[in-house]
Amino acid sequence: MSYASPLGCLRLRQALATMLASTRGLAPPADNACITRGSQMAIALLAHALLRPGDVIAVEQLGYRPAWESFRLAGARIVGIPVDERGLCVDALERMIARHPIRALYVTPHHQFPTTVTLAAGRRIQLLELARTHRFAIIEDDYDHEFHYDGRPVVPLASADTAGVVAYVGTFSKVLAPGLRLGYIAAPAPLIDQVAAHRSCIDTQGDQVLEYALAELLEEGVVQRHIRRMRREYGARRDCLVASLREQVGDHVAFTVPAGGIALWLRAKRGVDVDAWARAAKRRGAMIVTAGAYTLDRRPQPFVRLGFASLNPAELREGVRRLASALRGA
Amino acid sequence: MSYASPLGCLRLRQALATMLASTRGLAPPADNACITRGSQMAIALLAHALLRPGDVIAVEQLGYRPAWESFRLAGARIVGIPVDERGLCVDALERMIARHPIRALYVTPHHQFPTTVTLAAGRRIQLLELARTHRFAIIEDDYDHEFHYDGRPVVPLASADTAGVVAYVGTFSKVLAPGLRLGYIAAPAPLIDQVAAHRSCIDTQGDQVLEYALAELLEEGVVQRHIRRMRREYGARRDCLVASLREQVGDHVAFTVPAGGIALWLRAKRGVDVDAWARAAKRRGAMIVTAGAYTLDRRPQPFVRLGFASLNPAELREGVRRLASALRGA
Repeated sequence: MSYASPLGCLRLRQALATMLASTRGLAPPADNACITRGSQMAIALLAHALLRPGDVIAVEQLGYRPAWESFRLAGARIVGIPVDERGLCVDALERMIARHPIRALYVTPHHQFPTTVTLAAGRRIQLLELARTHRFAIIEDDYDHEFHYDGRPVVPLASADTAGVVAYVGTFSKVLAPGLRLGYIAAPAPLIDQVAAHRSCIDTQGDQVLEYALAELLEEGVVQRHIRRMRREYGARRDCLVASLREQVGDHVAFTVPAGGIALWLRAKRGVDVDAWARAAKRRGAMIVTAGAYTLDRRPQPFVRLGFASLNPAELREGVRRLASALRGA
Repeated sequence: MSYASPLGCLRLRQALATMLASTRGLAPPADNACITRGSQMAIALLAHALLRPGDVIAVEQLGYRPAWESFRLAGARIVGIPVDERGLCVDALERMIARHPIRALYVTPHHQFPTTVTLAAGRRIQLLELARTHRFAIIEDDYDHEFHYDGRPVVPLASADTAGVVAYVGTFSKVLAPGLRLGYIAAPAPLIDQVAAHRSCIDTQGDQVLEYALAELLEEGVVQRHIRRMRREYGARRDCLVASLREQVGDHVAFTVPAGGIALWLRAKRGVDVDAWARAAKRRGAMIVTAGAYTLDRRPQPFVRLGFASLNPAELREGVRRLASALRGA
């Protein structure tokens, strides 16, 4: 009885390397990539490889709570860095580092989770320089790279990483189906070796059939065609949601139309209690998530996130109608 | 987008509970079971839930190294307890505990790995009593429960556990295919809750299609029929290997015919260097594993393990012929 490589099947890693080179300006050799069961496992493996109990990891706040759970599991202390309309506030990170060294930073630069903003170009350069100087690792979670509607997707931090400080995390679960757990890490070889050793300890190997199937679908361009179709469809859904919101709740919320991603981020205007709104909406069968879910201290803030990827235009219009009704009745 | 339960699909847990009740005298409610990706993930999850850095876990020595890796990952200190022809030496464990408290014990009582012996009935009672008195957890790995040829399989320690100290680990990967990662833990509810929380942190969910498929195959009795066929086939393979060994290398090795399991455990007689034998066998295309692989210190011992499950009778006879040739040429 023999088992597969803990890095995942070589053919998939080769197809992945080709895809990353053509879409992201990233060219990891196949041995610098590890196939994982979705981005959650990727983040958990990196947390284990990079962090020791007591280490500090900086995260975006607002940010992605399930990643924080993995960092806590590794025994790390989590410090939140603010996010504004140009993404992570790198100046704030720099001030923090001056006081407390950090071991790693977890960041979603493409479509920031949950605010959807893209990290500005100047900040990207500043951030890479900071990581190089202060020797901390950057975990770059590019969970919805493919879903960019206006212009081309922004290339990852990893593509400009000459110092070997960035571990890049991507996933096919959003492109294909959430039930298919297929993500990956592209990172410098020593880190990937640690990741692979830990991977085989928690999960002997991935789904070989699934990995070979995805390799073939990538080689034949099927995934790429599917992504182009999804991009058109999701772009239309975004536009539909934007139009419906402007028409029906435009007096109560403000928002910037995001260039990509799978959600809109709304600021509630004065007088709107977002948590009461969310409860009233839920009673009407419409789900919105309020900002407290994305903070370290769960303190309420006047923002809500509206996912649009899983609803068709008719459902989106009906959803907004219910949100408007909830706003009147909240 | 919503995800499945971190415990695994309910229908599979129900089918599993029915199977455990009828084959092992174990009747965990479906909520006391967690489906995992093979026994490796089960052991890693239990290690994380039970052990804190510095905790001591006792293991069988000779024993199963990949489990030890999981315990080390959790920061535990590993202490080896000897195994004799009646399984784990529970007296030795008791003497050890008198000096150093332990947090957990990892044990393979059915067909001890790698020596294939079954833990004697008296020792089972003594062990459960010891765990109850000294409040340590028992991780019972019953990795090849199904493969028992002489009489009925021995029921697990877990079936006599009235104190809630045993976490039972089983797997379908050996029954179906090593590439299908399907194992499980049956354990008291508080422990299962911890396991589930950790599971969703390292791997959002299992393979839903696979889990539903296995549930259906269990409900329809297909797995059970397959096991009966495998048991006949593997029993015949064991007998074939035994006969070939007696005929061709009987002067150089001694062994007890195991009542179950998927391997034979041979003691090399005086004058046989097992590592030289293994190297000579490998050159002839026959793989045997020597005892050093199953020790904490990798110190050589005059034993080898011969797996027979994956070879048909003709292959087994040819394999033994090569072993005999290697013995002459070693």
